[in-house]
Amino acid sequence: MKMIYNVELIILNKDGIRDPEGETIQKYVVEKISKNIQNTRAGKYILFKVESSNPEEAEKVVETIAEQGRLYNPIVHKIIVRVIRDENSSH
Amino acid sequence: MKMIYNVELIILNKDGIRDPEGETIQKYVVEKISKNIQNTRAGKYILFKVESSNPEEAEKVVETIAEQGRLYNPIVHKIIVRVIRDENSSH
Repeated sequence: MKMIYNVELIILNKDGIRDPEGETIQKYVVEKISKNIQNTRAGKYILFKVESSNPEEAEKVVETIAEQGRLYNPIVHKIIVRVIRDENSSH
Repeated sequence: MKMIYNVELIILNKDGIRDPEGETIQKYVVEKISKNIQNTRAGKYILFKVESSNPEEAEKVVETIAEQGRLYNPIVHKIIVRVIRDENSSH
């Protein structure tokens, strides 16, 4: 039986690669408000509603789309793919 | 004792508000590759390393920064704030 899974694709610069957007938010927004944030990284978030028979397959489809659709650049980006239970887990 | 928590801030257009970026990815990228994706929403992802004594307080700090730092517009956006175990849960 097919179900609908919410699958997140998160695209971030790799750890060794600078992140000017995150650095800017850290320096000009975060540090003005709180001293407890050590680091800020900015990235892209894409949420897919995937029809699939199991969560592993749903993740696999999103990985395929990310690669074949060139939604990220494997040279500079890392991706995180996750099935989530509830897309409104806060607010 | 203070610990370091990885806290995600995800910013998405509210459900009733159009998402031209997500619609474009859905129509011109996703549907060319897979028929199993029903919907695509695009948003912003920000990851903070928060020094805090517990995860609830870590989330609270990020919510405060998102609001006071105007990282989102509550009229059109919804936010999701989550502590994550491991920032590299995939790839």
